[in-house]
Amino acid sequence: MLRLVSRAARCWGARRAPPGPERAPWGGQHPMAVQRACLSSAAGTGAWPKDVGILALEVYFPAQYVEQEELEQYDGVEAGKYTRGLGQQQMGFCAAHEDINSLCLTVVQRLVERGHLSWDAIGRLEVGTETVIDKSKAVKTVLMQLFRDSGNTDVEGIDTTNACYGGTASLFNAAAWVESSAWDGRYAVVVCGDIAVYATGNARPTGGAGAIAMLVGPNAPLVLERGLRGTHMEHAYDFYKPDLASEYPVVDGQLSIQCYLRALDRCYAVYRRKAEGQWRQAGVQRPFTLDDFRFIIFHTPFCKLVQKSVGRLLLNDFLAAPNPDTAAGLYKGLQPFRGLKLEDTYTSKEVEKAFQTASQEIFNQKTKPSLLLSSRNGNMYTPSMYGCLASLLAQ
Amino acid sequence: MLRLVSRAARCWGARRAPPGPERAPWGGQHPMAVQRACLSSAAGTGAWPKDVGILALEVYFPAQYVEQEELEQYDGVEAGKYTRGLGQQQMGFCAAHEDINSLCLTVVQRLVERGHLSWDAIGRLEVGTETVIDKSKAVKTVLMQLFRDSGNTDVEGIDTTNACYGGTASLFNAAAWVESSAWDGRYAVVVCGDIAVYATGNARPTGGAGAIAMLVGPNAPLVLERGLRGTHMEHAYDFYKPDLASEYPVVDGQLSIQCYLRALDRCYAVYRRKAEGQWRQAGVQRPFTLDDFRFIIFHTPFCKLVQKSVGRLLLNDFLAAPNPDTAAGLYKGLQPFRGLKLEDTYTSKEVEKAFQTASQEIFNQKTKPSLLLSSRNGNMYTPSMYGCLASLLAQ
Repeated sequence: MLRLVSRAARCWGARRAPPGPERAPWGGQHPMAVQRACLSSAAGTGAWPKDVGILALEVYFPAQYVEQEELEQYDGVEAGKYTRGLGQQQMGFCAAHEDINSLCLTVVQRLVERGHLSWDAIGRLEVGTETVIDKSKAVKTVLMQLFRDSGNTDVEGIDTTNACYGGTASLFNAAAWVESSAWDGRYAVVVCGDIAVYATGNARPTGGAGAIAMLVGPNAPLVLERGLRGTHMEHAYDFYKPDLASEYPVVDGQLSIQCYLRALDRCYAVYRRKAEGQWRQAGVQRPFTLDDFRFIIFHTPFCKLVQKSVGRLLLNDFLAAPNPDTAAGLYKGLQPFRGLKLEDTYTSKEVEKAFQTASQEIFNQKTKPSLLLSSRNGNMYTPSMYGCLASLLAQ
Repeated sequence: MLRLVSRAARCWGARRAPPGPERAPWGGQHPMAVQRACLSSAAGTGAWPKDVGILALEVYFPAQYVEQEELEQYDGVEAGKYTRGLGQQQMGFCAAHEDINSLCLTVVQRLVERGHLSWDAIGRLEVGTETVIDKSKAVKTVLMQLFRDSGNTDVEGIDTTNACYGGTASLFNAAAWVESSAWDGRYAVVVCGDIAVYATGNARPTGGAGAIAMLVGPNAPLVLERGLRGTHMEHAYDFYKPDLASEYPVVDGQLSIQCYLRALDRCYAVYRRKAEGQWRQAGVQRPFTLDDFRFIIFHTPFCKLVQKSVGRLLLNDFLAAPNPDTAAGLYKGLQPFRGLKLEDTYTSKEVEKAFQTASQEIFNQKTKPSLLLSSRNGNMYTPSMYGCLASLLAQ
C-alpha cells in the first residue's frame, strides 16, 4: 500500500534519552522546509497532487516498562508464555501524570517544532484513538491549544474511533483531503494514540501505550499507492468497551484472532484483485503474490500473531495459485493442504504450523524488522502499525 | 456552502405516520436509479467528478415528545421560558427500546431500501455521533449487519466524534473521498445520530433525539460548493461529557453561547474571504454580504439562538461594510454600534437586540423555514443542521 520513494531521516523518540529539539536529526536542511514553498500552488486545480503520503512521523512511547519475563513470574504462568508464546519482550505503561491528551500533545508539538513548521502551515488535524476520556470533547480540540499563539483556528478534521482502526481511518481521510477540492495547500497532521490496559488475565501481557503523529501532504517520500486498498468491515463482539467507567476492554481472545485472520484474508483478496486489475490494464497477466511486496507490516496485537499472519498470507497465495509446485521450493510438502477452504482453517493448528514454517524466511526478511517497537513496548492500538513502519524505517 | 441544482423529492419520516417502503415518494423513476449506471466510469481518472454533494437524505426522530408548555409547568418556571425564551415547542425523546444503534440502523436501511439501492453500491459509510455507548466498537460496525446478505464488506469510513460537529466532519470526509483517488465509483453514506438528554436544570428543555442518513456522490442536486468553507476549532470546556458512566453532558450555558457566536464570526469571516477571493479571480470586486445567501441554516441548540445568530451575521456585515447607510434601509439607526469590535459584544444585550430587530426580515425569509424540526423535536446534536436542511427542502 505504501511505496517508498526515497529514504528520509525519521524522527524517532528513543526510550531512555529522547532527543530535545536542539538535537533534531533533520537539521536545517529538512526536505519539508524545501517543499513548503511549492505546496500552495497545487491546491484547487481540479487534479490530484503528486505522491500524496507521509512526509514525516514522530513517535512517543512511555519510559516505563515491565519485563515480560518478570510478568510471567508474577502471574505464576509457565516461563516463556508471554515471551516465546506471544513474542513480547517488554510492555510499556504510562506514568501517573500521562494521559491520552499528553501523549498526543507531545507528538504533535515535536512533529511541528522538529520539522521547523509554522502552526499556520497545518490545515487539517485528525486524531484516531479509542482511549476515550470524554464522550464528547475530542482530543483534537485539546491539541488546538498548540495553535493558539499562531491564531490559526481554520483547521479541519476531528477524532475518529473504532478499536485499532482509527489511525488508519484518519490517514485515509487526510490523504483524501489533500486530493480533494477542500485542500488549500496546507499540510494535514494525523495523530494516533492509545493506552492499552487489560484486566488481570490472559490479555494483560498484550498491553502497551504510545502515540504517533504523521505529516501528510504531496511530494512525500512514503506514498500511498492509488487504487490499491482492501477494506473488511464486519459486526463482531470480539473486542469492545461497553463498561464506560472502566479502562478495560471486554475481549474474546479466540474470536478476536479469527476476526483478525478473516479480515486479513479478505483485505488481501481485495488488494490482489485491484493490483491484478491495474496490471491487466498495463498488459500484464499474472497472479499477485507475496513476492511482489518488499515489506509487509501489520497491526500488531502481539508479535506472534503477526508471524502467523505471514503464514496466513502464504496460505492465501498457495490456495489461489493455479498449479503450485509442491515437490520443491516455497510450497514443498504442502500438497495435503491443497483442497482447503480459507474459512475452514481459522482454528487449525496444523495449517498454522505448516504455513508458518514455510513462510519463515519471508517473515524474517519482510516483516521481522518492523516488530522492534511492538515487541519492546507492546500494542499501542491505533499507532501500532505506524510503530511498525517507524521500526522498519529506523533500521 | 450548499448549492441547490434542482429540487428533488426528499424522503421524510412523518411524526405520526411514517411511510413504509411501499409508499416511498421517490417511486420507480428515482434519479439515483438513473445515475447509478454512470457512476463507476468517473472514478480513478485523476480529476474530481462533477457536482459532489447530497443525493438523498432520510430523517428519523422519535414518536414520543413533551410539550414545552407542559414542561414549563412541571419545572415550575415562568410561562414562556422554554417556548418564547428558547423558541422550542416540543421535545422528542426515545422510547425504552431505542438507542443510538437503532436510530442509525433505521435511517440507513430506509435510505437504501427507499432509494432502491443495492448494498453493494455503497463503498463508504461513516457515522458522526457523540452518543457513545461503547468506547471502542463503532456504531458503523453495527450498521454492517445491514450489508451481511450482500457480502459487501469493502466499505471504508468509521465513527467520528466531537460534540455536534461529527456529522459535518463525516460529510466533509465523504465528499473528499468521492473526489480522491480512493473513490471506486460507489456511493458514500453519511449518518448523523444522537440522543440529547440533560440533567434537571436549565439545559433540560434543549434536549432532543434523531438520526439522519445522507447519500453522497457526484451529480447531486445539493452540491457542496468547492473552495468555500470556513472552520473554527478551539479548545474550550463549554460542553463536554467527562462522566463516562452518565448520559448527561456538563454544560456551561453562557460560555457555550459565546463559543457558538465566536465560531460563527470566525467561520463567516473565513467564508467571506474565500468567496471574495473567488470573485476577484472572476473580476468582481465587492464585499460578500447576507444578500448573497439564498438560505442560511444553522446547527440549532435552540431556535432562539439561531435567530440571534442571523442578527450576529448582520453585525458582521455592518462592521465590515466600508460606509454603511445608517439613515435608511437595513442599517437604519445602527450608527451608535459603528465602532464596536466583535469580540467585545458577545454578552451585550443591546447589540443583540438591535441586530436581531434589524435582521428580522432576513431571518423570516432565509432561516425560519428551516426550523420546523428543531422547534418540534429539539436539538439532535450531530443531525441538527441536516434536520434544518430537510425542513427547508420539505416546504
